[in-house]
Amino acid sequence: MTERITKDTQLCMSLSARPSNIGTRFHNYLYRELGLDYVYKAFTTSDITAAIGGVRALGIRGCAISMPWKEEVIPLVDQMTESAAAIESVNTIVNDDGRLVAYNTDYLAIRNLLASHGVSPSDDFAVLGSGGMAKAAVAALTDAGFTHGHVVARNSQSGPALAAKYGHRWADSLGDLRPALILNATPIGMAGGPQADEVPVPPAAVEAARTVFDVVAFPAETPLIRLARELDRRVITGAEVIALQAAEQFVLYTGVRPSDEQVARASAYSRETP
Amino acid sequence: MTERITKDTQLCMSLSARPSNIGTRFHNYLYRELGLDYVYKAFTTSDITAAIGGVRALGIRGCAISMPWKEEVIPLVDQMTESAAAIESVNTIVNDDGRLVAYNTDYLAIRNLLASHGVSPSDDFAVLGSGGMAKAAVAALTDAGFTHGHVVARNSQSGPALAAKYGHRWADSLGDLRPALILNATPIGMAGGPQADEVPVPPAAVEAARTVFDVVAFPAETPLIRLARELDRRVITGAEVIALQAAEQFVLYTGVRPSDEQVARASAYSRETP
Repeated sequence: MTERITKDTQLCMSLSARPSNIGTRFHNYLYRELGLDYVYKAFTTSDITAAIGGVRALGIRGCAISMPWKEEVIPLVDQMTESAAAIESVNTIVNDDGRLVAYNTDYLAIRNLLASHGVSPSDDFAVLGSGGMAKAAVAALTDAGFTHGHVVARNSQSGPALAAKYGHRWADSLGDLRPALILNATPIGMAGGPQADEVPVPPAAVEAARTVFDVVAFPAETPLIRLARELDRRVITGAEVIALQAAEQFVLYTGVRPSDEQVARASAYSRETP
Repeated sequence: MTERITKDTQLCMSLSARPSNIGTRFHNYLYRELGLDYVYKAFTTSDITAAIGGVRALGIRGCAISMPWKEEVIPLVDQMTESAAAIESVNTIVNDDGRLVAYNTDYLAIRNLLASHGVSPSDDFAVLGSGGMAKAAVAALTDAGFTHGHVVARNSQSGPALAAKYGHRWADSLGDLRPALILNATPIGMAGGPQADEVPVPPAAVEAARTVFDVVAFPAETPLIRLARELDRRVITGAEVIALQAAEQFVLYTGVRPSDEQVARASAYSRETP
């Protein structure tokens, strides 16, 4: 509440090209629930260097980084932890008394979700896409012990590069591949996008899979996820990624770990249209 | 309330070496009272250049500047308005879409209080002190048409310089001077200071004066103000300066002018120990 904001209240924030209210609602909900003297607000900027300099100089405790600055901030921080260094992409900065430490909680969330849903590292996989989230996914899979997989991407630069970096294979389309784990890291199925109603793989591939993991978060029930549910496959949704990565940010900023139930409620609250 | 903070909420702030909660309480009280989508918080910094760069890059709407940065920020802003330029001292920065415009609302408040209390420009004055507030006072007096006065300051550099700049005279102590207006801009009488219990002029000078103006705000009832009230002199207090200068900042940040009654209530609220 505004009335409880004092000089000692910690500010956390996000920087994105087109801010939403989701992070603001998620974090403020949990601060209130847990009685923490923090406040959160989304920002945008046209000068990422000065903005990060401001985070440091103003003692802003934490800052979520979105597109298009996840790589641009790398030279602006003081330390890249393993999660950010693994994929050369930062989505979280923690300010420890003027020292900026970078993390990637998307990577952490994907890795944790594979484990908590019991996906076996002996499963072969196909990661669809070669952008930032695909990088996080391939790195998380590899670091979790998955050894057999494909990066499926039409981009003949970034696709093969990502596959080669982690010792996997590249394919420009799924073709006859029928992996046990399909992980979509393309925008196909995203609300408002040009392919909002499409499924990124043939239905036969979903039928042949054990697990379907879609990082698209809006809607949580993408056409791919809906099809996988109809076919009774194990599903992991983008809504879970977003909630878990935000929860990891919350822990990094506050040192307090909310319960799964609190995270679920904060996440549901954050996704309501205010 | 935290629950109403969104990506569109405007942030205003202060930068001072030792932040207090007064501005935070004053502004947030009025935002709530007037239903404005703003939030205010006090900050400190060890890097004023990066902090002001952050204000600009993050689109922070307004920033109050306290000691020791009132002069240091001058090269960091895009425009010095008359109030700041007159005394080469900034206490308020307004961010208009990335363009930083500087003001000095102490000057504005002192000038307005002289007028609203009906102090006649034909009165001769003594301003005690030669620091930032003394500068604001001498400039405000001069610009309001006061022509006869002394700067009374032991500092033989800044005292004569300030007097000469505005065509007044310097004295290293009040001596036999018995001005109609005594304006204290020294820390004498300030709570917690080494001269908290002292009156900066002889009682006979208070008796000879028509108006006693003390810019010391803590306490509002300084020994000087108490003596002047006992002698039934017209008094203007530092609490009035602080409330009015904060009200002027509020108008600059929001474009909304609160009523005198609202300012008085916000000011009283801001001075309660939370």
